Amino acid sequence: MDTIDYEILKQLERNAKCTTKEIASHVHLSPPAVAERIKKLEEQEIITGYYASIDFKKLDRPIVALVLFKSSDCKKLSAFCCSHPDVLECYRVAGEISYIVKIATQSVETLEQFIDQAMPYGTPSTNIVLSGQKNMVF
Amino acid sequence: MDTIDYEILKQLERNAKCTTKEIASHVHLSPPAVAERIKKLEEQEIITGYYASIDFKKLDRPIVALVLFKSSDCKKLSAFCCSHPDVLECYRVAGEISYIVKIATQSVETLEQFIDQAMPYGTPSTNIVLSGQKNMVF
Amino acid sequence: MDTIDYEILKQLERNAKCTTKEIASHVHLSPPAVAERIKKLEEQEIITGYYASIDFKKLDRPIVALVLFKSSDCKKLSAFCCSHPDVLECYRVAGEISYIVKIATQSVETLEQFIDQAMPYGTPSTNIVLSGQKNMVF
Amino acid sequence: MDTIDYEILKQLERNAKCTTKEIASHVHLSPPAVAERIKKLEEQEIITGYYASIDFKKLDRPIVALVLFKSSDCKKLSAFCCSHPDVLECYRVAGEISYIVKIATQSVETLEQFIDQAMPYGTPSTNIVLSGQKNMVF
Amino acid sequence: MDTIDYEILKQLERNAKCTTKEIASHVHLSPPAVAERIKKLEEQEIITGYYASIDFKKLDRPIVALVLFKSSDCKKLSAFCCSHPDVLECYRVAGEISYIVKIATQSVETLEQFIDQAMPYGTPSTNIVLSGQKNMVF
Amino acid sequence: MDTIDYEILKQLERNAKCTTKEIASHVHLSPPAVAERIKKLEEQEIITGYYASIDFKKLDRPIVALVLFKSSDCKKLSAFCCSHPDVLECYRVAGEISYIVKIATQSVETLEQFIDQAMPYGTPSTNIVLSGQKNMVF
Amino acid sequence: MDTIDYEILKQLERNAKCTTKEIASHVHLSPPAVAERIKKLEEQEIITGYYASIDFKKLDRPIVALVLFKSSDCKKLSAFCCSHPDVLECYRVAGEISYIVKIATQSVETLEQFIDQAMPYGTPSTNIVLSGQKNMVF
Amino acid sequence: MDTIDYEILKQLERNAKCTTKEIASHVHLSPPAVAERIKKLEEQEIITGYYASIDFKKLDRPIVALVLFKSSDCKKLSAFCCSHPDVLECYRVAGEISYIVKIATQSVETLEQFIDQAMPYGTPSTNIVLSGQKNMVF
Repeated sequence: MDTIDYEILKQLERNAKCTTKEIASHVHLSPPAVAERIKKLEEQEIITGYYASIDFKKLDRPIVALVLFKSSDCKKLSAFCCSHPDVLECYRVAGEISYIVKIATQSVETLEQFIDQAMPYGTPSTNIVLSGQKNMVF
Repeated sequence: MDTIDYEILKQLERNAKCTTKEIASHVHLSPPAVAERIKKLEEQEIITGYYASIDFKKLDRPIVALVLFKSSDCKKLSAFCCSHPDVLECYRVAGEISYIVKIATQSVETLEQFIDQAMPYGTPSTNIVLSGQKNMVF
Repeated sequence: MDTIDYEILKQLERNAKCTTKEIASHVHLSPPAVAERIKKLEEQEIITGYYASIDFKKLDRPIVALVLFKSSDCKKLSAFCCSHPDVLECYRVAGEISYIVKIATQSVETLEQFIDQAMPYGTPSTNIVLSGQKNMVF
Repeated sequence: MDTIDYEILKQLERNAKCTTKEIASHVHLSPPAVAERIKKLEEQEIITGYYASIDFKKLDRPIVALVLFKSSDCKKLSAFCCSHPDVLECYRVAGEISYIVKIATQSVETLEQFIDQAMPYGTPSTNIVLSGQKNMVF
Repeated sequence: MDTIDYEILKQLERNAKCTTKEIASHVHLSPPAVAERIKKLEEQEIITGYYASIDFKKLDRPIVALVLFKSSDCKKLSAFCCSHPDVLECYRVAGEISYIVKIATQSVETLEQFIDQAMPYGTPSTNIVLSGQKNMVF
Repeated sequence: MDTIDYEILKQLERNAKCTTKEIASHVHLSPPAVAERIKKLEEQEIITGYYASIDFKKLDRPIVALVLFKSSDCKKLSAFCCSHPDVLECYRVAGEISYIVKIATQSVETLEQFIDQAMPYGTPSTNIVLSGQKNMVF
Repeated sequence: MDTIDYEILKQLERNAKCTTKEIASHVHLSPPAVAERIKKLEEQEIITGYYASIDFKKLDRPIVALVLFKSSDCKKLSAFCCSHPDVLECYRVAGEISYIVKIATQSVETLEQFIDQAMPYGTPSTNIVLSGQKNMVF
Repeated sequence: MDTIDYEILKQLERNAKCTTKEIASHVHLSPPAVAERIKKLEEQEIITGYYASIDFKKLDRPIVALVLFKSSDCKKLSAFCCSHPDVLECYRVAGEISYIVKIATQSVETLEQFIDQAMPYGTPSTNIVLSGQKNMVF
């Protein structure tokens, strides 16, 4: 990892569709040299994939919430959450609480359903997302 | 939005590098028809971008934490967090707490620095991420 | 729904005994036109009923409390509360807690009874109402 | 207050539009005797008014929340809440918390505005209402 | 109850050994009249008894604590506490918690024993008394 | 302190009006010997006084509460509480909270006044006493 | 215990390898007199041992945490913790919580394992140690 | 670091007075070879010192407590605690709370003093140590 690798990651993090040619002009290398470096970053699993980002608020899931759980059986809670269609991300954490789930759901009715189904595995504290922002890693 | 659009989103969410040809074979449409649909999804901002996903644990920021804040001035806390280089995501929420920040940082020393700098804007409760998982939207 | 409908709702919300003639003079329509609009608002279930408001503090239930529950079985708690004679309102909520009950009761003895009976369904935190106010919707 | 008075209150609580004639048939009194009793209940302010009940979820305020406040200046918080257009009910309470507000608001954006404006007067914990029920007093 | 009764209570509350003669000189009545009033206050159970107050800190129980319990079975907790030799007072309460016990005990070892024995009936939060004061009722 | 002293304390704790003669018959000593021992217990301030116990619920202060404070200035809170007419007992404690006050007050209105006046000195959590019991020390 | 004993403890607390000769020069006694006093302090178990202090952060256990437990069975929790290889110190406490454990562990994965194994015995709240300091007793 | 180094650390951790000869017989090396290894462990600051352990409960400080602080200015709290004579250890932590202090003090009066002095720097929650245990690192 040198500063050129960081610059390449910075470009791809902002736009995965960026061509090796475009990146090459940024880092003053030839496109094949850039392609070679990207391949290496992928092999080392520093780049773990390329994703389209979808605004589910525009689709049918306008309610986004971060649900904090105190749980005495995180493995069962995790198994439940990982297979629930409304769950976007879930984190096993060590702190005041033991599990944090990000969900996007259709309505307060489906939110109630999720909470009712999750309750046997832990005590939830629901926080409705009012607004959010993603920063770049680099 | 029809079931074909959903299928296209599903493909791109998993792999942004997926070609229109590959997607076309999945949805039984011609590649230009797929390209047209993708363009529309981009224009409607249902697809908000394409990103490389980077494993910052493999780089120089192995400590990932979700910091929950009780704050009486969320705007200032938000301004601070959005401009902090260790912050990956931040959420203004309504619930027991008022702000949730996801950070990836170098060491317990830099974690201490972040917390010290954030404290004037709110009371933090730090939860170290032990493990996590991202689900697909579709 | 237009501004005249809102004005009609505003009148009825303040006084359900308000006659169509009185409302008509406010909104500069004929009484039959007002009656027609009220009928529509009732059919659309925007107006859900007309109630006399009773000051139970003047009767035999001077202690009013808002009891917050953390519950792991909200359905059973809800069934219990909805059938309890002292309960005025109950809300299934998502946040730090999961259920909020408004009760009006005779004495600290009956309050203790309610809490004892409710405890198998959740952990209560009782807040005695010192004073309250109802705002109008419009 | 005798059992006939209670029966009259029970009728009016369920339907304020109930005629004295209808009530009279229930309580086996003449309509003028019923009217006399109702007048007395109004004069004693046991009946405090007659209201139309409006389903604001059907209008433009679909998000209903119960916001719990810890406040060190309840008078200022009360003054703010009582004059805020989204506030339906507010209660000064003694318990773990000091103030409870019921609001109905348009969107997560207006909820964020309410919370930001209320924060100088107390620390809010927001609970989104998933479902609710009103019981009759009698 | 008149102001003379209050004055008599005030004297006895401060000193139960106060004679009717001494009280009589305070309230400008004859000793028999005072005796009569005291008898009435005892019969109405306004005066519930006369007690010597003992400083158990000077004896063998130097550690005084107020233990707050969250309990889901207050009746069992109450039965346990009322029969425990270290317990001085116990209160069933409605608020954030459900039971408060005042104990005076010999050592941290006997405190640990009390807590271990009480734990099956509720979750204790122990507060060691650093200093205290009793006010007079009148 | 021997077992006879303990027996004397036990008698006086239950009934301060108990005569030396009555106690003497219990402990198999002469009344003057008992009187001598009581005098000593008073001089050592093991017996700190004799009090009439008053049931303020029967008078004009039916609402009894234990108010738990988190305070950052316990000295000021203590000064306020010790001089407040509704306060019966107050305790500086070390634990989750820092101050506990027992009050008996006239009505929810006077309770609200007490809380409003105490708030500048700490954050109160009010617990209404539903029932209580005093155990004997011996 | 006199001031010389305190001075001897102060020297040994800072450096257990300190010779009786070195200490003797500090306290103006002969080395045999110092040796005699040390022997007595050991026999009275005022000195409970001599330990090398090891920086486990430099070895394979860089993550140090203080885990606070609310437990309803402290004996079982204690048995578990005392035999766990990552646990450095454990305390049975009376306060808001009931058990505090200091652990040093290899990674977030082993931290997760510890928490998962401890959970059947109590609810943990994990606090990662950012920095620490040991003061001398004297 | 090899298994012999670990064995040496294990011996010294249990008894700093252990001679190189005694250790040598354990690890099947010559005493000079052991001395050489110990010197290296000291130079690498893996061994950070040798301490006598003192039972302050036997001296004049019988009350041991772990005080948890929520603080918005940890640097000032740390400066205060590090210079306070009753403080044994203090930890800056990231979790639900921000600072943990272990103190040994003379009496509830000196405990009250410590808390009063610390309060300007943070909100304390005091936990009295009932019993404790130190495990060996190896």
